[in-house]
Amino acid sequence: MGYVDFGYKPSKDDLVCLFRIEPNHEERVPYRKAAEMVAGESSTGTWTELKTMNKKVRNMGAKVFEMRGNWFKIAYPSKLFEEGNMPQILSSVAGNIFGMKAISKLRLEDIKWPEKIMKSFKGPKFGIPGVRKILKVSNRPLVGTIVKPKIGLTPKQHAKVAYESWVGGCDIVKDDENLTDQNFNRFEERVKETLKMRDRAERETGDKKAYMPNVTGETKEMIKRARFVRKQDGRYMMVDIVTTGWAGLQTLRNQNINLVMHAHRAGHAAFTRGNHGISMLVVADIARLIGVDQIHVGTAVGKMVGGKEEVKHVGEEIEERIIREGHHSLEENWGEIKPVFAVCSGGLQPGLVPRLVEIMGSNIIIQAGGGIHGHPNGTKSGARAMRQALNSAMEGIPIEEYAKKHKELKIAIRKWGKI
Amino acid sequence: MGYVDFGYKPSKDDLVCLFRIEPNHEERVPYRKAAEMVAGESSTGTWTELKTMNKKVRNMGAKVFEMRGNWFKIAYPSKLFEEGNMPQILSSVAGNIFGMKAISKLRLEDIKWPEKIMKSFKGPKFGIPGVRKILKVSNRPLVGTIVKPKIGLTPKQHAKVAYESWVGGCDIVKDDENLTDQNFNRFEERVKETLKMRDRAERETGDKKAYMPNVTGETKEMIKRARFVRKQDGRYMMVDIVTTGWAGLQTLRNQNINLVMHAHRAGHAAFTRGNHGISMLVVADIARLIGVDQIHVGTAVGKMVGGKEEVKHVGEEIEERIIREGHHSLEENWGEIKPVFAVCSGGLQPGLVPRLVEIMGSNIIIQAGGGIHGHPNGTKSGARAMRQALNSAMEGIPIEEYAKKHKELKIAIRKWGKI
Repeated sequence: MGYVDFGYKPSKDDLVCLFRIEPNHEERVPYRKAAEMVAGESSTGTWTELKTMNKKVRNMGAKVFEMRGNWFKIAYPSKLFEEGNMPQILSSVAGNIFGMKAISKLRLEDIKWPEKIMKSFKGPKFGIPGVRKILKVSNRPLVGTIVKPKIGLTPKQHAKVAYESWVGGCDIVKDDENLTDQNFNRFEERVKETLKMRDRAERETGDKKAYMPNVTGETKEMIKRARFVRKQDGRYMMVDIVTTGWAGLQTLRNQNINLVMHAHRAGHAAFTRGNHGISMLVVADIARLIGVDQIHVGTAVGKMVGGKEEVKHVGEEIEERIIREGHHSLEENWGEIKPVFAVCSGGLQPGLVPRLVEIMGSNIIIQAGGGIHGHPNGTKSGARAMRQALNSAMEGIPIEEYAKKHKELKIAIRKWGKI
Repeated sequence: MGYVDFGYKPSKDDLVCLFRIEPNHEERVPYRKAAEMVAGESSTGTWTELKTMNKKVRNMGAKVFEMRGNWFKIAYPSKLFEEGNMPQILSSVAGNIFGMKAISKLRLEDIKWPEKIMKSFKGPKFGIPGVRKILKVSNRPLVGTIVKPKIGLTPKQHAKVAYESWVGGCDIVKDDENLTDQNFNRFEERVKETLKMRDRAERETGDKKAYMPNVTGETKEMIKRARFVRKQDGRYMMVDIVTTGWAGLQTLRNQNINLVMHAHRAGHAAFTRGNHGISMLVVADIARLIGVDQIHVGTAVGKMVGGKEEVKHVGEEIEERIIREGHHSLEENWGEIKPVFAVCSGGLQPGLVPRLVEIMGSNIIIQAGGGIHGHPNGTKSGARAMRQALNSAMEGIPIEEYAKKHKELKIAIRKWGKI
């Protein structure tokens, strides 16, 4: 078929994908053949020779140019893609290929974007520097919470939990992924009540505070909600990027509404977990390109999957400007595209914070829901305990030592332990 | 935690999900405990007891009400969901749960929609009866093709392949999933050229012909493209629903543009294949609810995964009004929501058609790309061979018998064989 060329050197205009494969051994498909079929199906080929094929089209085919064991790289000429159209790009390089009988498992591990395609997306409006500027926190990780119970509170109850979180020491309060606009808690009322409490918490603490309402929904509704938030003097919005989908996310970003965009990744693990599907690295990559400012990447230490290496790796991919090639990833030069805040969320509690900061560094948002609102003395104490845990990490004091003089932390560790 | 109640009978307002699970055996999580954690995380719970919990919220929790081996059902009170907001619903029942450490595999097999939620989505505008009316084909399967090579032809070349397909006997011609608006083949020019050829093919054959241009893209661009198609007197559009995402698809459907909506599923197999993720049944279910008129479901016999049972099952789910409960599925009453055409596409060729029709019945669209444009005598002969294969199936004549008097079919079988 001609979709393999180990002598080929990718040009700077090529989009390069790194795949991991398991061919269909039952059908005795060899590795090289399976890789070639992936390159064909994701560019100009199909399962049989075509009478309608011509030389010009043949030259547009993708090429497997490197293969080591079950890892291989494909270079795609960028003219195969429509600039600024993420669904189209993914329908090519992350489309039919996952369903081919010739493979039994296939994982898209990383994408290297050529400059031309990179420039056709907006990238983050704020990124890490913009968010730090709004919150006036220059060095340490930000501390956030999710209002819990995740669903069921009234707007007033919601706002009260948010208020206690802020005055206890949280920088950020967010809605959970499944709270949008339900009967028991209407979006507009919640936003108004909670932003009112944000203002109060700012006055009382003298610090900047952020509220991230979940605008997730059908595209026009999302835009309407985001505009409403801005009108109420909100500075942030949150979107469930996976269940919303790339078209909707692009549209929301394209409106250029003056709100920090926080990306929740609910649903990602349906395809990022295991040896088949798309890696979380690719999801985070796409989100940076389209232009979220913050994205959930895992915790390495909490209730969700995602080991230390993976989470760290994803964190670097969205934070650094220059990415060097590694075993599981391709090089990348993000150029002017701003760095994105890695959000560590899912089963976090104060006792895990020092280890988390050690792994992930300071450019992260540490989010705890249960780990704050489950504190035996309630939300305000839970938020205090989190800040104390962070302080211990920033000051390099062992957490058990720090807990001796900070009762909220002491109580939290007694309940949940530490690592 | 209280998320299990085997005495509970779901009410008609509950949304019910059927899951298959593999708990994390390394962490020795028992089946029941794992199922309970899924119910908690996807409704009102988290990993620890909350001080902010109250009785009203506790009563809104989801319930595992049935469990057999590794299959279990959860009933969700419909008030947990926002009507008409598919991303929100999926962020709940197909969100964080896939990433929980307590499970090693989890698959959402089916969803039963309560009437209230069902009514909050539009459903198909045309459905099977509407499409049959436009094409004036009342009984037999429709025959479609994808212009191949899938990418790289100019608009004029594209239109010519389409023309030959139609005059050879195809009812439908569609763009492929990765062709949208690239430099080598601009969307508007392609639509104009191809619809011109459609008109010519209609005049020459006296039959109705359909062209399905791929409008996939950022939401506003999709809407713009769909409106352009309508203005050019097109009657169909095609969307890559998985890479576009549910928000964008809902928005496009909500515009109520007078075009049949054809759903390509490129990318689905990243999460529908294997024992973890979301079943194709659920994807098709959601697509019917939002309102596509046609959707790719697999072929049972072609180049893509999807065995006979699965494909047949998905076909029934989108075609029938009343779905009876089975081992892998929940009952459903689709009420006034129209039936959707199952599209069988991927590696089809004439020799597979009789078996396909035997499995899937007559309410399907049979699509072949390579199996038409790879015919040794070219596209027109390929289209003829497909219609001949279909005729043999409809008339109950063995295909090898029929091929004796139909040379295009004979040549096709000589090249690709039959089953």
